[in-house]
Amino acid sequence: AFEVIGDVQNEIDRLNEQASEEILQVEQKYNKLRQPNYKKRSDLISKIPSFWISVFLNHPQLSSYLDQNDENILQYLKRVDVEEHDDIKSGYRIKFTFDTNPYFENDVIVKEFSVTESSETTCKSTTLRWKNEAKNGQSASSSKRSDGESRKRAHDTENNNNEHGAFMTWFTDTTGEAGNDEFGEVIKDDIFVNPLQYYLAATTNDEEEGSGGENDEEDDLEEKDDEQE
Amino acid sequence: AFEVIGDVQNEIDRLNEQASEEILQVEQKYNKLRQPNYKKRSDLISKIPSFWISVFLNHPQLSSYLDQNDENILQYLKRVDVEEHDDIKSGYRIKFTFDTNPYFENDVIVKEFSVTESSETTCKSTTLRWKNEAKNGQSASSSKRSDGESRKRAHDTENNNNEHGAFMTWFTDTTGEAGNDEFGEVIKDDIFVNPLQYYLAATTNDEEEGSGGENDEEDDLEEKDDEQE
Repeated sequence: AFEVIGDVQNEIDRLNEQASEEILQVEQKYNKLRQPNYKKRSDLISKIPSFWISVFLNHPQLSSYLDQNDENILQYLKRVDVEEHDDIKSGYRIKFTFDTNPYFENDVIVKEFSVTESSETTCKSTTLRWKNEAKNGQSASSSKRSDGESRKRAHDTENNNNEHGAFMTWFTDTTGEAGNDEFGEVIKDDIFVNPLQYYLAATTNDEEEGSGGENDEEDDLEEKDDEQE
Repeated sequence: AFEVIGDVQNEIDRLNEQASEEILQVEQKYNKLRQPNYKKRSDLISKIPSFWISVFLNHPQLSSYLDQNDENILQYLKRVDVEEHDDIKSGYRIKFTFDTNPYFENDVIVKEFSVTESSETTCKSTTLRWKNEAKNGQSASSSKRSDGESRKRAHDTENNNNEHGAFMTWFTDTTGEAGNDEFGEVIKDDIFVNPLQYYLAATTNDEEEGSGGENDEEDDLEEKDDEQE
């Protein structure tokens, strides 16, 4: 009896593998189709000043990690591009493109999460070439910050055990794992899916009581109807 | 610029929806293909005495929840069938089929998790028709149990706030949510995928030090090689 159950189980396993394979193919197909749109979106976004720093600061999870050092550096962040590996299960890379800035020489820095066939996870990131005089992320532009506020926020930030702030600490830390890296997953699965909504959240926070702009007109009309009754 | 970004974003959203739809179709196709195999496996398993109670007791997560009351009842569990809803995202049901037993009249009891289109989650379960004299899960067969052991295990079990044991407490509790019910997910995504491995784990526990039976022969050969050198 166990042998027959084993045979049936093998058939189920085979179907499961086949299903995973087909799903992977669908995902790869749509990854290719999305690519030119991502590129176009990234080009357009790169022209909007302070887009990414606004997105990060408006994101409920990310904002609580960021401190003043992060903000100073991320002002220069111009592009964020997420690329899934061809075999999606095997990882992804996040490419950060910076404007010329007082902190480091690199213009493109990449953080990459990989999973090998034997399920080993690796994490690599571009080595930052810090400009010496600004190694702690506090250059001329830091004169803007209020020291009191900065201290308060640094205190709120668990990961802030580093002079570069939480973002750069995350970036340079290569102990992260694909599928298990909070920062990386938030960027890949949430922010990158629709960054515009977080950028716009800044300007619509004031009116957040209702369900947003879309229904305002309808609400107005209904109110008028009520008045007429 | 925001309008153009919005247009690109709409195109990305459309592609995401289309991808989800195609993936769903693949999953549905394979669900249909797996069905006759599940049926066959379930028929074969139902002939093996104490199969499911052994599986549950061998499962690392589940076993820690079960107490003596559960064990008494689950001795009579003959079939476990998981059925995904046609629209997989909308939920699943777990069908438990019991032999005639001293505890309740029902032969089939079903626990079902659903998600409506407006993302409301519901959980239903068959009402148990308890046989009066055995309402607390302790009938004739409970004479087997050692009271000391039972108390100890009940103490280990967080959810054991009910005379029917953790399993029946879980079954009758309808506050669970699809995708967020530990018991339900373990049965659906782990046990049901390959129950035989947990049944067989009981008989192979003794030899668990190595990496299992497969490599034992190889190891032996290597040892012999070493001796010859």
